[in-house]
Amino acid sequence: MLSLDKVFSAQMVLKNIIRETNVVRAYGIAPACELYLKPENLQITGSFKVRGSAYKIAMLSEEEKQRGVIACSAGNHAQGVALAATKNGIKSLICLPDTAPISKVEATKAFGAEVCLVEGCYDDAYQKALELKDSMGYTFVHPFDDENVIAGQGTIALEILSNLDDIDAIVVPVGGGGLISGIAYTVKQIRPSVKVYGVQAAGAPSMFNSMKAGEIESLSSVSTIADGIAVKKPGDNTYALVKEYVDDIALVTDDEVASAILALMEKQKMIAEGAGAAAVAAVMYDKFDLKGKRVVAVVSGGNIDVTSLSRVIDRGLLNSGRSTSLLIELLDKPGQLKEISRIIADCGGNVTGVHYEKGNTESVTGCFLRIDMETRDFDHVNLITQSLRNEGFKLV
Amino acid sequence: MLSLDKVFSAQMVLKNIIRETNVVRAYGIAPACELYLKPENLQITGSFKVRGSAYKIAMLSEEEKQRGVIACSAGNHAQGVALAATKNGIKSLICLPDTAPISKVEATKAFGAEVCLVEGCYDDAYQKALELKDSMGYTFVHPFDDENVIAGQGTIALEILSNLDDIDAIVVPVGGGGLISGIAYTVKQIRPSVKVYGVQAAGAPSMFNSMKAGEIESLSSVSTIADGIAVKKPGDNTYALVKEYVDDIALVTDDEVASAILALMEKQKMIAEGAGAAAVAAVMYDKFDLKGKRVVAVVSGGNIDVTSLSRVIDRGLLNSGRSTSLLIELLDKPGQLKEISRIIADCGGNVTGVHYEKGNTESVTGCFLRIDMETRDFDHVNLITQSLRNEGFKLV
Repeated sequence: MLSLDKVFSAQMVLKNIIRETNVVRAYGIAPACELYLKPENLQITGSFKVRGSAYKIAMLSEEEKQRGVIACSAGNHAQGVALAATKNGIKSLICLPDTAPISKVEATKAFGAEVCLVEGCYDDAYQKALELKDSMGYTFVHPFDDENVIAGQGTIALEILSNLDDIDAIVVPVGGGGLISGIAYTVKQIRPSVKVYGVQAAGAPSMFNSMKAGEIESLSSVSTIADGIAVKKPGDNTYALVKEYVDDIALVTDDEVASAILALMEKQKMIAEGAGAAAVAAVMYDKFDLKGKRVVAVVSGGNIDVTSLSRVIDRGLLNSGRSTSLLIELLDKPGQLKEISRIIADCGGNVTGVHYEKGNTESVTGCFLRIDMETRDFDHVNLITQSLRNEGFKLV
Repeated sequence: MLSLDKVFSAQMVLKNIIRETNVVRAYGIAPACELYLKPENLQITGSFKVRGSAYKIAMLSEEEKQRGVIACSAGNHAQGVALAATKNGIKSLICLPDTAPISKVEATKAFGAEVCLVEGCYDDAYQKALELKDSMGYTFVHPFDDENVIAGQGTIALEILSNLDDIDAIVVPVGGGGLISGIAYTVKQIRPSVKVYGVQAAGAPSMFNSMKAGEIESLSSVSTIADGIAVKKPGDNTYALVKEYVDDIALVTDDEVASAILALMEKQKMIAEGAGAAAVAAVMYDKFDLKGKRVVAVVSGGNIDVTSLSRVIDRGLLNSGRSTSLLIELLDKPGQLKEISRIIADCGGNVTGVHYEKGNTESVTGCFLRIDMETRDFDHVNLITQSLRNEGFKLV
């Protein structure tokens, strides 16, 4: 049974393994409320996951420890289990689908785990892990549906409550539900007036749907940039805990998550992965009634690869009108690029790319001009497009 | 006169204005030493600059406070002065060249300053600020060459020494020299055995050159991505303090700085601006003898715009062989894109962009194919280019 004692015991056990991440005030991200962040992206291994695994592993019997642990994950859980096992001086084996990115495989090895690459997808790797667990006697460390894992994640709530008084609400990303179960359970035992809100990705609403349906529901597929919370089915334990202790769950879109990642970079100088930014996105886009409230958003992790980050930045800039790409049909006469450049410069746009593209223009000899530029906001974009139209250019 | 008393007094004064940023252990960035970061990029206003300005302003007489302060800066100093003045309840006027990015102007206003846009470059804005200082009676807040400003920056050293025992060295970015003067002075009073090293950008080596020459030297121009430390001439006070208290100064290239920014993003989930990453770059690229040592690198700021960040990521990926762009001359026969795609896929490269480009090929009907792809490292790049060459393709 989960108990507050277990959460306090986890806090003691974790003392020499994890970093105690301090809540920080976030200005300029959601001006309507007093927003704080719990930056678990700055946690060792780059996510909160190490808390649950480390407590789970510490609580194993000596005999179980000698046999070692096994887990299946291509992400934060893998690194959490790897580090937790290494810190406890025991062996860990992580099953990964062989399609997992090389960077994740390397990171998992770097924390001391042995890696078993399984042909196929995640489900294949999961099956293989269960087989090996049975045949080899390893203890399986579930990513969320385990009371010790949940108690480990609950330590986050203890730290938040000790950092900050008079909190009105804590907003938490939800995948399988381990993180929010631990936090909600702990908070409601100690300070029941604090609201706990969950956030899922619109492309992976398994806990959200299950709550609405009143029973556990599975998704056949998931699709979101918040891959850390792309879970098809809640756990039995986590479903029950969320049902009892969580006040509400909302969904955020990928575009909202991208804007939150960008806001965290610009305002807080910190990198969050998609799942890590989901709670901040929910606050930014008013998914709960938080006006004037003192709110803590849990930034659960920061393990996003920089290539994706580059794409998220581009998307975020487009979404906020800070970059624009225009397709202009060029007429069959000279000097048009010069004319277009003049109009854009006069409006204060900063051209970053120009491409001629052939295409189905009205005139046989015409072509399209693709112009990329930096802009201030959507009003600025409108000013530029209107000026171009006023001077006779045809925008596609 | 600068004194340790002033630094301690600054620490008291700053208590309710700044954030005390805790030193964090950085793994995987410079494995040869035990590296810690002093994350002033997480400071309020996104850089350490607020410390010096806030102490300077707090020490003004009541009459001076009533008249207000003036400063000239397009960057971190502007925001520091603005916030410091606002927190002290006094008026601030910041002169900026009218070419300053809109985002910087807006940030400065957001912290409560009045902004005066001056036609021309930085030097013009500086002249205007001096004029206004004289005609209006404002106190000019110098960005670095002022003992109270230096004492304010010295509080960073007090925090480092209270966070961490047995430090061997502190590595600090150097522009005008205010930050390193404050840190070196303070450290050498309290724990003289700790080495203090300075780092400048190779494209703006004013303090470096001055130290080598044994007298203050000016640069006619500066050029670096580390714009926060692109200073043409050291101050009189800072030059004297650096000469007395700093153990050595080294230079880092823009590519080294870009790699450090990328490493901080990937390993520490934190955003540093170019100047902010300079000290980390020096540690990564062995500019000082730090093997086996316990080292603190000061990450001085995080105010980099996301568009630049996107470019830094791209550059960093190229520099580490994690992305590649190949230009291949296509012969005058069909099916070549298919063949090239097969070879790259067989080698495990991930194609992210393909462009046909006309150009001066051997055959009149030939053309060039530009292929962008994600790769693992330089060995992987070599494997792919070698495979393409082995099958008869001509790489340009």
